[in-house]
Amino acid sequence: MNGAKDVLFGFHPVNEALRAGKRTIYRIFVSRRQSLKRTRKIQDQAAAAKIDTVRVEQKVLDTLTGTENHQGIAAEVSPFPVRNASGIAQMLKPEKEPYFILVLENIEDTHNLGAIIRTALCAGADYILIPKNRAARPCPAVSKSSAGAMEHADIFIMTNTANILRELKESGVWVFGLDGEGDRSLFEADLTGNIALVIGSEHKGIRPLVKKECDFLVSIPNMGRINSLNASVAGGIAMFEALRQRL
Amino acid sequence: MNGAKDVLFGFHPVNEALRAGKRTIYRIFVSRRQSLKRTRKIQDQAAAAKIDTVRVEQKVLDTLTGTENHQGIAAEVSPFPVRNASGIAQMLKPEKEPYFILVLENIEDTHNLGAIIRTALCAGADYILIPKNRAARPCPAVSKSSAGAMEHADIFIMTNTANILRELKESGVWVFGLDGEGDRSLFEADLTGNIALVIGSEHKGIRPLVKKECDFLVSIPNMGRINSLNASVAGGIAMFEALRQRL
Repeated sequence: MNGAKDVLFGFHPVNEALRAGKRTIYRIFVSRRQSLKRTRKIQDQAAAAKIDTVRVEQKVLDTLTGTENHQGIAAEVSPFPVRNASGIAQMLKPEKEPYFILVLENIEDTHNLGAIIRTALCAGADYILIPKNRAARPCPAVSKSSAGAMEHADIFIMTNTANILRELKESGVWVFGLDGEGDRSLFEADLTGNIALVIGSEHKGIRPLVKKECDFLVSIPNMGRINSLNASVAGGIAMFEALRQRL
Repeated sequence: MNGAKDVLFGFHPVNEALRAGKRTIYRIFVSRRQSLKRTRKIQDQAAAAKIDTVRVEQKVLDTLTGTENHQGIAAEVSPFPVRNASGIAQMLKPEKEPYFILVLENIEDTHNLGAIIRTALCAGADYILIPKNRAARPCPAVSKSSAGAMEHADIFIMTNTANILRELKESGVWVFGLDGEGDRSLFEADLTGNIALVIGSEHKGIRPLVKKECDFLVSIPNMGRINSLNASVAGGIAMFEALRQRL
C-alpha cells in the first residue's frame, strides 16, 4: 500500500464512500469474525461494482487501519478528492445560490472536524473550506467521526484563509464569523443571502487576521453561569440557524 | 473514602463545585507535578473556605479518580444533590415561568449526558430531568464532560418518565419530544410557553410509552444525504431554538 492510498475504516465511511462515488475503492477488507447484515449488504454492493472483498484476521485490520475502532471493516481507497480554494469564486455553482459556505478556521481535533462536517451536511452547507496547515485534514479518522458524511462533502483547501475570504466578499458573499465576543447575536443576523460562516478552533477561536475579514462577528447568547459551548455544538446551532432562516 | 462520597476530577468540575456551593467539599487533591496558575487560584479559594488541599503523587490521583484524565486535580465531595421528580409540579419556582424543562430519556453515554447538560445550562434550561434506570447518572465523569456545568444544574430523577410528563402536562406545561419522525418541524413549533423538551437516547430515540405522552413530536429538518445528527448536537439545536424564541 503506497502513500497515495487511504484506508477508510468503520461501517459508515466505507458505506458512504461506496454511495458517494467520489473515490476509487480498490479493495474492501472484512474481519473474519464479522458477519453483520449491514456488512453483507456492503459486500453485495461492492461485488456489483466489481470491487473485491478480502476476509482478514481482526489483527490485520487493526494494523491496516492503525486503530481498533474499525468495526471489522475497512477499504483501501484513493485519497479524498479536495480542491484548492484559490479562485473559489469561479468554482461556485450558480444553481446553489444563495450559497452556504462553511469556513473552518484551524479545527485541530479530528473528532471535532468530523462532527462539524456531519452537521454541515445535515444543515445543507454547500461547500466546506479548511486550511492547509495547522488543522485536521479530511483523513479516514475524520470520515469516521463524521459518520461517513465527509464522503459526500465538497471540500476546498485554503493556503491563506484571509485571502479566500476577501475573494468571497468580492463576489458578493457575506462573511459571518462565529465569535464569543461578537457584537451581534447570531439570532439577529440575516443569514438568508450568499453567506460564508467562519468557525474558529476550540481553544483560540478565529485568529485576528481572519476576524478582520469578517463582515460581521456574531455570538450565541449564553444564559449560563459557565464558560461556553463545545465547538461542535456551537457550530451546529449556527449552521441550523442559517438553515432555519433559509427554509 | 466511603460510598457516600464522590471524587470529582478535572479543573472545571472542582472549580465549578467550589463556585456553585451545592456540595460539601471535604478535601482537594493536587498532583505534586501540577503548578498551574488556575490550580493555585483554586487552592486559594479552598483555603478561604477552610478546605484542605493535599499534595499527592500523580499515581495516587489516578487511583483515587479511576482515570488518567484528571488534569492533576481532584476533590473528595458529597454526592451531587438531586431531587425525586415525583411531585415536581409543586417544586417548580414560579419566578422561573415560563419554565424550560429538559427531559433526558435514557442517555446512556456519560460523555453525551455531560455535553447535553453543558449546553442546557448555556441555553437557560431551568430544570433537567433524568431517569433513575437505564441512563447515565450525574457522576463525576458527567461533571467532567459537562466542563463543570453539571455542578450548577438543578437535576431531578424520574422513576417513571411517562408519569412525570403527565404530571407536568396537568400543571400547564407543553411537552415536546425531539424525534426524527416528528410530524412538525422544530422551527414551526411554538416554544415560548412553559415547555418540557424530551430528548431520546442516541440509538433508540424516545421510547413509545414516553412518546405517547408528548403533546408534539418535532423534528430537525435534514438537508443531507446521510442519516442524522449526533445526539448532543441535535439537543443543542433544539434547546437554542427554544432560547431564540424566548429571548
